[in-house]
Amino acid sequence: MTRWDRSRSSWREHTDMALRVGVIGGGQLARMMVPPAVELGLDIRVLAEQPGMAASIAATATGDYHDAATVLAFAREVDVVTFDHEHVPQDVLAALVDAGVAVRPGPAALAVAQDKIVMRTRLSSLGLPVPDWAAVHDAAELGAFLDAHGGRAVVKTARGGYDGKGVRVVTASDQADDWFTALAETASGDALLVEELVAFTRELAQSVARRPSGEVVPWPLVETVQRNGVCAEVIAPAPGSAGRIADTTGDIAVRIAEELDVTGVLAVELFETDDERILINELAMRPHNTGHWSIDGATTSQFEQHLRAVLDLPLGAPGMHAPTAAMVNVLGGPADGDLASRYPAALAEFPEAKYHFYGKAPRPGRKIGHVTVTGDDVDDVVFRARAAAAHFDD
Amino acid sequence: MTRWDRSRSSWREHTDMALRVGVIGGGQLARMMVPPAVELGLDIRVLAEQPGMAASIAATATGDYHDAATVLAFAREVDVVTFDHEHVPQDVLAALVDAGVAVRPGPAALAVAQDKIVMRTRLSSLGLPVPDWAAVHDAAELGAFLDAHGGRAVVKTARGGYDGKGVRVVTASDQADDWFTALAETASGDALLVEELVAFTRELAQSVARRPSGEVVPWPLVETVQRNGVCAEVIAPAPGSAGRIADTTGDIAVRIAEELDVTGVLAVELFETDDERILINELAMRPHNTGHWSIDGATTSQFEQHLRAVLDLPLGAPGMHAPTAAMVNVLGGPADGDLASRYPAALAEFPEAKYHFYGKAPRPGRKIGHVTVTGDDVDDVVFRARAAAAHFDD
Repeated sequence: MTRWDRSRSSWREHTDMALRVGVIGGGQLARMMVPPAVELGLDIRVLAEQPGMAASIAATATGDYHDAATVLAFAREVDVVTFDHEHVPQDVLAALVDAGVAVRPGPAALAVAQDKIVMRTRLSSLGLPVPDWAAVHDAAELGAFLDAHGGRAVVKTARGGYDGKGVRVVTASDQADDWFTALAETASGDALLVEELVAFTRELAQSVARRPSGEVVPWPLVETVQRNGVCAEVIAPAPGSAGRIADTTGDIAVRIAEELDVTGVLAVELFETDDERILINELAMRPHNTGHWSIDGATTSQFEQHLRAVLDLPLGAPGMHAPTAAMVNVLGGPADGDLASRYPAALAEFPEAKYHFYGKAPRPGRKIGHVTVTGDDVDDVVFRARAAAAHFDD
Repeated sequence: MTRWDRSRSSWREHTDMALRVGVIGGGQLARMMVPPAVELGLDIRVLAEQPGMAASIAATATGDYHDAATVLAFAREVDVVTFDHEHVPQDVLAALVDAGVAVRPGPAALAVAQDKIVMRTRLSSLGLPVPDWAAVHDAAELGAFLDAHGGRAVVKTARGGYDGKGVRVVTASDQADDWFTALAETASGDALLVEELVAFTRELAQSVARRPSGEVVPWPLVETVQRNGVCAEVIAPAPGSAGRIADTTGDIAVRIAEELDVTGVLAVELFETDDERILINELAMRPHNTGHWSIDGATTSQFEQHLRAVLDLPLGAPGMHAPTAAMVNVLGGPADGDLASRYPAALAEFPEAKYHFYGKAPRPGRKIGHVTVTGDDVDDVVFRARAAAAHFDD
């Protein structure tokens, strides 16, 4: 038996003619690109932060994505570079572009996703609906915003937040003092974002894919349920959204993709308010948790579509297999870490459920997998997806 | 950038708790197990014959599957061993079993798939419907069979045939002399199989999956179209087969799986005759070309089901997403080898088609991919699947 090194040229000789996609970052989003890449006959290569990550089956290199030389060496072996996350620094992205690498989405689009104040500024200038907001540099400015908004607001760090991290509801001007202090010390920007606390009835997400030559394809609008700032459940399509609401969110997402020149998948998280307004919450320029349902519920999943889009290939049909789909995240997992022992009962009870796990060790609150169920009745698919996922709770 | 070797232990540390499936053989069937393995969070490892094969993304070793030491070394690192093909010799399989390795399907079942005379003998002894057949050792015995069957018959080598190789229609007793001569020189058995030339109206295939603890789940019966002995198209479900025909084929496949103790996927290729009889043609104890439609057309694909079955996990639901599905093979591919140049037109014309390529270089007659289309109307899905696949013809 010969053990062999994937980095030797020989192992890839069969794929010499295949289109090569390089993904920076080895998390579950890169992992979930692997099945459609294998199916479409693409050569997918991942630059992982370290060994043993979720996308390790496709990792051809490990290295620090903050280092331009590392990323350039990886990029030279692929036809296009795309991302598992939005954290690659602008100087590294610029070095790739200078070297002639196709980077999708490009640095200008990613700059908007990397900084929430840049994002809010840009969306406001496009006239798109966003909550009231301000960039605040100190407690006095935060206090003024609170006075103008009924004494309550949401403060967010401009950079580096995700899954509820870097987000805080405040009711007094001194409740973000630690973050103001940190601004001077870190690369998190020179101001905090403060926003009105939106009275929403529910949260929605609208994803689209866009390719460089211009084609844009939206998926059905979905409803999302967040718990502790983390996506817990998604229902596709969002109940009762056909017509005006879905038309509005589709228009918003297509306009953002086009105005910001986004290539690949763009996910727009939205609030639906008590008074039936739609407000933009967050943007993600990559496949997103709110689109995982599409793996099993849509003709073209967000991961396949992202690959097509960044390669500038024609986009696939986004329609659904069934009237409705529910996706429930598996968060945390068993305390003893023994995920495999939970499979028999789960698979036996719900043979129609699609189970997804990311090769990540269980840890409290961590997204380690998800379950999708499709069917005719929304209450039924939500019930079954929740019960299936619950087999993996502690 | 650190290039790294998948065979080092570190890269797998995250999957220490994952169930490990080892696949012997690196062809497209092993490749198509990769997406569901990734989705289910399984650790899939392939022993490939050489670098650069279809399943190389999951290959952790290369080596000769005829060598027991090679296969044993590979098998010791996984929870269960299964197969891309049925060619692993019985002495190697016996060595695995002796070492305590879980081998699925097991050696006794594989013995029936490895030798067509053993297969016919076994099916006949079970009283299952097969064409008239005989094991013939020389031209005289062949001549006697021809005399008894209207002067025409099909001769098959007992071992090593596939995709029309090792199959010949004969009308005279001397037309298999070369094969009789070869019998003495090769491991192809000590007799040839001769069968009546069945007057069939169409060919069918019935797949089931069975796990060691006994659960058996059939997929819908499909109609298959062979050209030059190679599977060209598959329609699921087989038109007009609901009721008696599908009940019969389901019963046959379940009975074979149980009687032969098959674990994993069993595909039974069948003839439907002019007089509405069902006769068994061939068996395959692994995912099979006639089941590729299930990747995009069924809730649980044959590749996911095979993984579940060999791990003795509960089986998934086999139902279809849509009323009908058509799968058309891409055979050969462009003479210039440039498959990638064909993607834009194909993907643009049929955004709803699911394109699959196996990372294999185009070569006349070679199975390099397939296309599946699902929908409401059988003529429509067949038309579109054919037209989509034709984009990749020379």
